[in-house]
Amino acid sequence: MLAAYVPVPGPVETIRVGEVPVPPLGANEVLVTVETVAADPVDTLVRSGAYPTPVQQPLVLGRDLVGTVLEAGSAVTDFKPGDRVWSNSMGHDGRQGSFAQYASVPAPRLYHLPAHVDPRLAVAVAHPAATAYLAWFVRARLRPGETVLVGGGAGNVGTAATQLAVRAGVRVLATARPEDQERCRAAGADVVLDYRDPHLATAVLDHAPDGVDVVWDTSGRQDIEVSATAVADGGRIVVTAAPERATTVPLRRLYTRDVAVLGMVISRARSRDLAAAAAVINQMLTENRLTARILAELPLEAAAHTHRLLESDDVAGRLLLHPWNREGETVWTGQAS
Amino acid sequence: MLAAYVPVPGPVETIRVGEVPVPPLGANEVLVTVETVAADPVDTLVRSGAYPTPVQQPLVLGRDLVGTVLEAGSAVTDFKPGDRVWSNSMGHDGRQGSFAQYASVPAPRLYHLPAHVDPRLAVAVAHPAATAYLAWFVRARLRPGETVLVGGGAGNVGTAATQLAVRAGVRVLATARPEDQERCRAAGADVVLDYRDPHLATAVLDHAPDGVDVVWDTSGRQDIEVSATAVADGGRIVVTAAPERATTVPLRRLYTRDVAVLGMVISRARSRDLAAAAAVINQMLTENRLTARILAELPLEAAAHTHRLLESDDVAGRLLLHPWNREGETVWTGQAS
Repeated sequence: MLAAYVPVPGPVETIRVGEVPVPPLGANEVLVTVETVAADPVDTLVRSGAYPTPVQQPLVLGRDLVGTVLEAGSAVTDFKPGDRVWSNSMGHDGRQGSFAQYASVPAPRLYHLPAHVDPRLAVAVAHPAATAYLAWFVRARLRPGETVLVGGGAGNVGTAATQLAVRAGVRVLATARPEDQERCRAAGADVVLDYRDPHLATAVLDHAPDGVDVVWDTSGRQDIEVSATAVADGGRIVVTAAPERATTVPLRRLYTRDVAVLGMVISRARSRDLAAAAAVINQMLTENRLTARILAELPLEAAAHTHRLLESDDVAGRLLLHPWNREGETVWTGQAS
Repeated sequence: MLAAYVPVPGPVETIRVGEVPVPPLGANEVLVTVETVAADPVDTLVRSGAYPTPVQQPLVLGRDLVGTVLEAGSAVTDFKPGDRVWSNSMGHDGRQGSFAQYASVPAPRLYHLPAHVDPRLAVAVAHPAATAYLAWFVRARLRPGETVLVGGGAGNVGTAATQLAVRAGVRVLATARPEDQERCRAAGADVVLDYRDPHLATAVLDHAPDGVDVVWDTSGRQDIEVSATAVADGGRIVVTAAPERATTVPLRRLYTRDVAVLGMVISRARSRDLAAAAAVINQMLTENRLTARILAELPLEAAAHTHRLLESDDVAGRLLLHPWNREGETVWTGQAS
């Protein structure tokens, strides 16, 4: 089969697209014919070795997929050939990746694609929406009636974070540059502020006088001074991205107000929590409450190209690849799907 | 009655010792004849205004007391005149302090002193041990079988933290200077390391190869680089003291390992959590499992002196005051009680 892989974790130049054996099918695995995959920023961290995780050699890249069941392992009861499915936790922790024509997915990490849902949308939101579910509901234990501040509200994760919070009965304040603020409002944000405003924290308190219960800067800029001022007594600051360089944190201001800083990386999520996220994502897909901005759909040969884009810039949308479409049309839409 | 007070929150020079009215007795309060009080570092933060909290004017200082019930309010059922009692949450959040001959204590914040327990020891451990209970079991949700690192293991809070953790079935690694290490071992620490060792984090990992589940630097030095290396994947760093200046924190190293930084201040504790702490403290006092290093027992006139000591230095023990003993002997023991 065709796959995008690296011989060992390394720089983007070592990505190859070529023939590798179809993966073996374990008793509790499902062999899936892969239709579309999405390239995640986290994929580049696994490929480069920056995020240490056990991998096979060669390492097939990619975490997310949508496709069709070809064959179910002998112990699998939930899936049968022809089922439409998706996954978002391949390509790390010893599992081979999704950037291939076939993938053997552990059954607890595979989810049914609901009827009448666009598979491109499903694979595009799979990773950002699962990240949002885990950050809000597993890590920060967000409750209906709370108020949150979403930094980077127009990004992939920020949009999903807003949509999941709003559906859970949570009020969202978001930050974005002015040209992106309408997208934040469309996702459900009650208030949108410019993250470059030098008085941003004060502006947050104008709209949430007691402070917000949870701050989550999905952009990774992590201005903890702003977060420390905007967060309520006893509140939480969720961190799922941060600069490589250490950040200055006013610990005394935080501890005297009972504030917690909660680090989280989706790569360490338990499969039962990912499955809980998938159930909510499927429900929201069915309700048409999740959106994604699909920037490009490309053939598998563009795998290295997507990694270069993700490593060089803050890509404001999703990049999809089609493993069976070698000469596929390159579509840069820049439009919300 | 005699009390140590400040007219309004301010510097140590404004502390007065003189006559003030005996406090009124509310229906759900208990009027206590105060026998001994302890001076806490946090008392100085309330007195100076550095820790903002509602206070009465004049503000009677002091958080902890041990004494005898003189009269119970009309709605109080748990206490009767003559009962021996202690408290550790006066002097902030609108409540008058304990540095006085009488105090009106809300009944939910008053606890019985067990029989055969030295009242000086009880008042000396009340605050450090409650801090340890809240940090370990309410904030960090410490479980039997876990391993912790206690920074400042020979201090007041560090000693209590070690004793409470060990009793809960937790393995303790502590740091202290060499001359204090035997005290850490006496408190139950399994391993004691020198906090000035430039390879401290490596030394911790020598004794806990997967890292420790919780790091708590009770000294307030907060070398987060060491904590970030010593903590296990998914672990917690508890912060209950920190330098005024902001601290450099390697957020990327923390979030990619699912680490949480949990700020906590005892002044915000719920009275039900303080009562749960008191029940454990009473049990451990009865079992003779708590110790304190009482450095001095002084008359109430020495209140300003204790605040000066607490503000100028890391006082390696407890300072007690006796409101009824105006000419009381000044005892500097430097010995563990």
